[in-house]
Amino acid sequence: MKRNSDKPIKITEVCLRDGSHTVAHQFTEEQVRSVTRSLDEAGMHYVEVSHGDGLGGSTLQYGRSLVDEMRLIEAAIEEARQSKIAVLLLPGIGTIHELRQVSQIGAKLVRVATHVTEADVSAQHIHMARDLGMETVGFLMMAHSAPVEKLVEQAKLMESYGAEAVYVTDSAGALLPHEVRERIKALRQSLDIEIGFHAHNNLSLAVANTLTAIEEGATRIDGSTRCLGAGAGNTQTEVLLAVMNRLGLDVGIDIFKMMDLAEHVVGPLLPRAQEITTNSLILGYAGVYSSFLLHAERAAERFGLDPREILIELGRRKVIGGQEDMIIDVAAEIARQKKEGVLS
Amino acid sequence: MKRNSDKPIKITEVCLRDGSHTVAHQFTEEQVRSVTRSLDEAGMHYVEVSHGDGLGGSTLQYGRSLVDEMRLIEAAIEEARQSKIAVLLLPGIGTIHELRQVSQIGAKLVRVATHVTEADVSAQHIHMARDLGMETVGFLMMAHSAPVEKLVEQAKLMESYGAEAVYVTDSAGALLPHEVRERIKALRQSLDIEIGFHAHNNLSLAVANTLTAIEEGATRIDGSTRCLGAGAGNTQTEVLLAVMNRLGLDVGIDIFKMMDLAEHVVGPLLPRAQEITTNSLILGYAGVYSSFLLHAERAAERFGLDPREILIELGRRKVIGGQEDMIIDVAAEIARQKKEGVLS
Repeated sequence: MKRNSDKPIKITEVCLRDGSHTVAHQFTEEQVRSVTRSLDEAGMHYVEVSHGDGLGGSTLQYGRSLVDEMRLIEAAIEEARQSKIAVLLLPGIGTIHELRQVSQIGAKLVRVATHVTEADVSAQHIHMARDLGMETVGFLMMAHSAPVEKLVEQAKLMESYGAEAVYVTDSAGALLPHEVRERIKALRQSLDIEIGFHAHNNLSLAVANTLTAIEEGATRIDGSTRCLGAGAGNTQTEVLLAVMNRLGLDVGIDIFKMMDLAEHVVGPLLPRAQEITTNSLILGYAGVYSSFLLHAERAAERFGLDPREILIELGRRKVIGGQEDMIIDVAAEIARQKKEGVLS
Repeated sequence: MKRNSDKPIKITEVCLRDGSHTVAHQFTEEQVRSVTRSLDEAGMHYVEVSHGDGLGGSTLQYGRSLVDEMRLIEAAIEEARQSKIAVLLLPGIGTIHELRQVSQIGAKLVRVATHVTEADVSAQHIHMARDLGMETVGFLMMAHSAPVEKLVEQAKLMESYGAEAVYVTDSAGALLPHEVRERIKALRQSLDIEIGFHAHNNLSLAVANTLTAIEEGATRIDGSTRCLGAGAGNTQTEVLLAVMNRLGLDVGIDIFKMMDLAEHVVGPLLPRAQEITTNSLILGYAGVYSSFLLHAERAAERFGLDPREILIELGRRKVIGGQEDMIIDVAAEIARQKKEGVLS
């Protein structure tokens, strides 16, 4: 496989962080220990452990964690002999206080995450993480929802704050392969730091999109074993590694051990199989936040519509988190247009 | 999306045929009716109904069907107002007798399937199908296991017998996107008839491979709703249609109706979720027949090996169905090499 980078590829396993959503933040300490231990034995490079919404996410609004995440992070650090433990931090949810704390207990990498158009809120946290001596990565979420130029501009901001890598984060699982290609390519031409890619499998394209990202030069890659992550889950780690191996890309992770832990360690944690069902498919198709689902269902009922019509229109308008009030407006407008015969 | 063909794309839903494997050939007449009715209402082009191993497959060797497939085919024909009913026929399992019978009851299309190197056994059946006035399609199975030139040669044979289309059939779910591209491209440059593509999702690449095939000019595309097909299933039909829609490819099938039937009609038929687990992943990774799994497990136990080592070596040697005796030989050789320290 031809790659537009000669740097080694580093894999971050996110099932203990993105998968936190899937298990409603109910991971036990023993689960985190056994998953980390198995990943470590397989040679995984990084293991991310945090509340699904990052450090400090355990709240009524985002969902309470069963076990304090600091205890989970510490447990993972104790189990890992070669894997480095990573954390996620969304400025506004997580704070400088928590960043210091995870650094003290031994987390080695932090991903500072913002909406794709709001990189400026990451400056302070990126600076602090570098000061603490942590590997520091920027994470631009909902990357499908901004034009490529905007993405590049925001990534350059994160680079200017000191990020050592910036991720294209396809939070809605909405990117198509050619859209991944143009985004990674544009970043490669504009940045001096590493580029990462984080996928969701809502359109069944996570592995293919990840291969495209690698081809174009991404070197930081996320996966979740058994797709244990929000929506239809992420790039299935053990599958990606098998495909990369077929393409001659060996990253030093034991594929058989990954398959074994997928089956015997992570599999039993899945509350349900990570199939692509209507809810995850429609998120990828419309390109909206999963939190819009319930609101759209309510609005649909009120206006006699199909919730999917509303979600698709919201996606077209690139509505973002915090704009939930638009959902009713959009529903009302569709209903009016239908009544007037503008839409069928 | 740029396509190397201007012909319309025709979708064949295979959940009632490839999915026959998944349900151990236990489809009821009412299930076939309700799935066909829903697919027909959504505007599906073709619905394939047959035993998993094609007409006449209901045997002790391949697994007995609960309901006689002629009754199932007839039921589907009764339900379909716009969809055409298709059947699969593997010469040697199905016969001319069954072909006449399905033609008489109203099946409109037959896919005559052979191993990728054995197209010559399809001549008689393709001729007969054309004589009966059926749409006639050649189906080259295990297409990953032959060099591109061989595939082209065999496809040209089927064309010479009268096939109106030839499929690249990725039975093991082993093809990578660039391998799909080179195969479809080579066929497009060598054939005057339509090209089809049938995927399995064992490497999580079915949707992406199908998009690649369409780009290169394939116009006959298979999908299975909810991935109801052998191994990890096929290209998930409702997901593919959503992605095609995003790419501006409208094939006249109602996506919301497809999502609804995926959830309410096909979903309840799944004996288990169609995740990618070790067994399906290893089939795609090694590129071998699923029927080799059990044999490899037995040989592994006898020689103290991991069954996956054996399957991967069998894949390297491009062993095909009927060569099951090679499994013990390969296992013995790996065990000997390990003992001698040649392999680790």
